[in-house]
Amino acid sequence: NTLVPGVQAFLQELREKGRRILFLTNNSREGGEELQAKLARLGILATREEILSAVEIVGPLIRDRFGPSPILVIGGETLRRLLAEAGHSLVPLEAYGEARVVVLGHDFDFDYQKLTAASRAVASGAAFLAVNVDPRLPVEDGEFYPGCGTLAEAVAAASGVKPEVVGKPMPHIFRVALHRLGVPADEAAMVGDSLTSDVQGAQAVGLKTIWLAPPGTAAGDVRPDLTIRDFTEVLGRLR
Amino acid sequence: NTLVPGVQAFLQELREKGRRILFLTNNSREGGEELQAKLARLGILATREEILSAVEIVGPLIRDRFGPSPILVIGGETLRRLLAEAGHSLVPLEAYGEARVVVLGHDFDFDYQKLTAASRAVASGAAFLAVNVDPRLPVEDGEFYPGCGTLAEAVAAASGVKPEVVGKPMPHIFRVALHRLGVPADEAAMVGDSLTSDVQGAQAVGLKTIWLAPPGTAAGDVRPDLTIRDFTEVLGRLR
Repeated sequence: NTLVPGVQAFLQELREKGRRILFLTNNSREGGEELQAKLARLGILATREEILSAVEIVGPLIRDRFGPSPILVIGGETLRRLLAEAGHSLVPLEAYGEARVVVLGHDFDFDYQKLTAASRAVASGAAFLAVNVDPRLPVEDGEFYPGCGTLAEAVAAASGVKPEVVGKPMPHIFRVALHRLGVPADEAAMVGDSLTSDVQGAQAVGLKTIWLAPPGTAAGDVRPDLTIRDFTEVLGRLR
Repeated sequence: NTLVPGVQAFLQELREKGRRILFLTNNSREGGEELQAKLARLGILATREEILSAVEIVGPLIRDRFGPSPILVIGGETLRRLLAEAGHSLVPLEAYGEARVVVLGHDFDFDYQKLTAASRAVASGAAFLAVNVDPRLPVEDGEFYPGCGTLAEAVAAASGVKPEVVGKPMPHIFRVALHRLGVPADEAAMVGDSLTSDVQGAQAVGLKTIWLAPPGTAAGDVRPDLTIRDFTEVLGRLR
């Protein structure tokens, strides 16, 4: 909830040069509207179309794959709303046996009953999608909350089935982003601070990558095209 | 909750020949008293000393290793009681930062708050013990509940630390069992239906193994000394 130095000037420069921008997030609880408001509070103005959250693409993905489906949702209100808006029916927890798909997002109200229902539905053949598999939700003070990926691990352990991942580092979300931008992969660059989610994920789809390296970390086996500590390093470098 | 054919006659034969018997279970919610009563309801009489449950050995193990310790317990009432009786203090959920050890057993009331407290305590250095890592708790009708191992996977994913396992297939519980029987490993045989927990676990400690094979399964890489479908196959075969 604080800005990395130079990010506003960098975004300004991108806009002045007519480059397209898209904010890409693995968020499994907040959709475009919420994130747009959050960015605005930080002083960054973005249109609704410039923000793509993993939570938004689950419903359309399931519709493309299976058609309108009965879904058991473990997750927050936005995820539930977006899935319903995408034409799916939401199965109550007790009726887990009717679910054709189980969708798992981050859920502060996760409990044993939800774990049991989701695991049983997946074990008996429902498709299993996790919005992301990030194990932690970092909190301001350096503390963390267990993330969507942690809940997915639990369901995977009990059901014996690994989830299909909708968000980064899997290709789907990057392809949706490129499609929305109307830009081929080799003309796009992904900027992010996670070597696995952002850099490896984007490289697999053919994007250039700029790694915003957290202090004290090294890239190791992953090789970003550019490594920066903050955005002042790239100011004035756009061709 | 139904007996495998021939088990009562087999136990009878063991007793007549003066062989020592110990019932060994990975149960993380029920202690010796509860299991003794359960066996009696099934028509099997066993002394308290002939029953060893994983839930019983956690407290003494922690005392041997760390001395009396502040413990954050995720689990049922019996686990809590046995840890307190072993001289440890139980840390309330909100005070997870004070825990030196986190103990995880099966817990029908597992929830996000417990997951968060346990994960944070483990991530900040508390020792992490799981009573067992069995992913499922089988239920009579072929259905299952997520097991202690599923909850342990979730805490491991969020904390980044794998649990130390107290129960089968790890050596500790087998050693405690042999010690209680007063028998060296090479004079003991483990009978069980799990290839990993029972057969591999016992082989690692040097016991002979009899695999009670569930219908339609094959041993594969694990090689029990004897494979049986029920206990009628071993009746009259004791030397």
